[in-house]
Amino acid sequence: MDRRSFIATSALGGTAAAATLATPAVSQGKVKLTMVTSWPRGFAGLDDAAQRTAENVAAISDGSLEIDVKAAGELVGPLEVFDAVSSGQADMYHSADYYYINQHPAWAFFTGVPFGMTATEHNNWYYHGTGSKRHNELGEIFNIRPFVAGNTTSQAGGWFQKEMNGPEDFNGLKFRMPGLGGKVLGHMGASVQNIPGGEIYQALSSGAIDGTEWVGPWSDEKIGFQEVAKFYYTAGMHEPSAALTLGVNLDAYNALSPQHQAMLEIASGHANIWNISQYGYFNGEALRRLAAGGVKILEFPDSVWDAFGAAAQQVYAEFMDDEFFAEIYEEYVAAMRDSSGWISRSASVFRRQRDRVLG
Amino acid sequence: MDRRSFIATSALGGTAAAATLATPAVSQGKVKLTMVTSWPRGFAGLDDAAQRTAENVAAISDGSLEIDVKAAGELVGPLEVFDAVSSGQADMYHSADYYYINQHPAWAFFTGVPFGMTATEHNNWYYHGTGSKRHNELGEIFNIRPFVAGNTTSQAGGWFQKEMNGPEDFNGLKFRMPGLGGKVLGHMGASVQNIPGGEIYQALSSGAIDGTEWVGPWSDEKIGFQEVAKFYYTAGMHEPSAALTLGVNLDAYNALSPQHQAMLEIASGHANIWNISQYGYFNGEALRRLAAGGVKILEFPDSVWDAFGAAAQQVYAEFMDDEFFAEIYEEYVAAMRDSSGWISRSASVFRRQRDRVLG
Repeated sequence: MDRRSFIATSALGGTAAAATLATPAVSQGKVKLTMVTSWPRGFAGLDDAAQRTAENVAAISDGSLEIDVKAAGELVGPLEVFDAVSSGQADMYHSADYYYINQHPAWAFFTGVPFGMTATEHNNWYYHGTGSKRHNELGEIFNIRPFVAGNTTSQAGGWFQKEMNGPEDFNGLKFRMPGLGGKVLGHMGASVQNIPGGEIYQALSSGAIDGTEWVGPWSDEKIGFQEVAKFYYTAGMHEPSAALTLGVNLDAYNALSPQHQAMLEIASGHANIWNISQYGYFNGEALRRLAAGGVKILEFPDSVWDAFGAAAQQVYAEFMDDEFFAEIYEEYVAAMRDSSGWISRSASVFRRQRDRVLG
Repeated sequence: MDRRSFIATSALGGTAAAATLATPAVSQGKVKLTMVTSWPRGFAGLDDAAQRTAENVAAISDGSLEIDVKAAGELVGPLEVFDAVSSGQADMYHSADYYYINQHPAWAFFTGVPFGMTATEHNNWYYHGTGSKRHNELGEIFNIRPFVAGNTTSQAGGWFQKEMNGPEDFNGLKFRMPGLGGKVLGHMGASVQNIPGGEIYQALSSGAIDGTEWVGPWSDEKIGFQEVAKFYYTAGMHEPSAALTLGVNLDAYNALSPQHQAMLEIASGHANIWNISQYGYFNGEALRRLAAGGVKILEFPDSVWDAFGAAAQQVYAEFMDDEFFAEIYEEYVAAMRDSSGWISRSASVFRRQRDRVLG
């Protein structure tokens, strides 16, 4: 799928979407925008990031810019928020852009991709490399002005009923994993399921699936996966970063004052570091509790990582005839190597030595 | 130094400082605050974080809250900003709080300490553990409302004229390192110098010192240390995080509207992730250039890290009779272990496997 032909043919392309212009509600000088989200109300971490973004804007605008946060399903379904905002049915979404890889595969980069950047590396690229610029270019195709506004950080490899000793153990495994990560497991022979969050516990409990990934210790413990699976692989290949996006209908965005536009950007940046730190803090506590409760914490062996890597290359190859995807991929990998070059020589060495010396 | 006796005896304690109330300039409904900084104008990374904080506030306030950023020396010297804000001579500072460990040793925690948290771990503790609360408590003693507003991330071990093969190589070494890190090297027999940034290149070039730490590849390359030293140890023990603080005179802060108060918090948070990512992105590029230019990139051997660790414990022991320092230390280490427990099982494993598989 080439970018230019995509623009020409998509019903969601710039010109078509502009015809369904969103008109933000304005009353007594106050602007009210509706945010549709992919998250159930009160959902730890994910809804927290959406709420925090809205609360930040409320505080710094003294209410002159009000964001009305709608939970998944209140106005539109959890995965319909993108189309709703692109078409002007709603003013903004809070979601994970990789849900929309069928609209354009490059959306995957703005959440996280297999063997891609960690949250730290992603932010390096986003704020100071070409990340934000590319995100905006992709957004323009769909009439959306995007901002990064949260990140779950590296997601866990997932819950299993047995130890995974080699790549052959994935053959025939019924496993829940969405996105490009699921495609990678598919190449390894897994029977990949995409089950909504609310139904995974039952599916794993009944044996309908053999295993699942979800988010990380904090979120996973809340669902109770430790009650129905014993083996937890903490490092996964599939979502080393899972950035969350505030996507604003471009016409609604352009109708805002420069001050309100700046508020969306700055409020999202604060929500990003706040949410990253939230996952980091509470995942640490939860992992300690899970281990104390008898969950076996494991790492995939090198042979599995090698097979993940080979399968991931096959998945990427499928998208490389899209010019825009291929351009971003090249920049993304170059930025990742630079960021990693420094981290692997500094913070990684420090942490390894610190934890060794302190014991 | 006990916290209560400190409050009673310090000329900068709460009551004394309140007598020199800062009065923010207010004109036509606009508030103008003066920010004094520890940074030369245009200084990469450090002044960038200060400027970005002020620019964020300007954008989201549409100029109703203006911050006038003064470079080091324009109003007061680089290390006089703390006293200036505490006493109400200036409205706010942008600086590194560990410069003020002689005012109270616990300020060290809010920049970074030897064998302490990385920037990621620091933010976990700051935004979701007791970090921000403790920062405010410490600030109240000095009539300051602090916010984290930047971070250089893990600083490099530094530049040397020879390889450091064991702890004995530090004995008699003339080395530039400020703060608690310098005290650690002192315990290992080094002759520790504290030379201002602008004079280090000449001191290293002339042989007046045998080596120096500064910040990281991006900042170090700009000064040109690669011209006068060949060996670069990238991972250091001394500042695994170097958080930067926006410290606001508490009376000036309390005189602001809740909206302007919120702007300072949200603008600082955005500046924090923006600055962390700036160092991450540009350190990566610079390290690649330094290596290509012939600098030998090295890691200290385990025996040196062991000696660093033993000396660091001696340094901490010197401060443990201060009740407030000891309380924070205990919370800090517990939060660090939880954060590290998750990182070492997730992002660290992922990065190691990714970089191994991709080659």
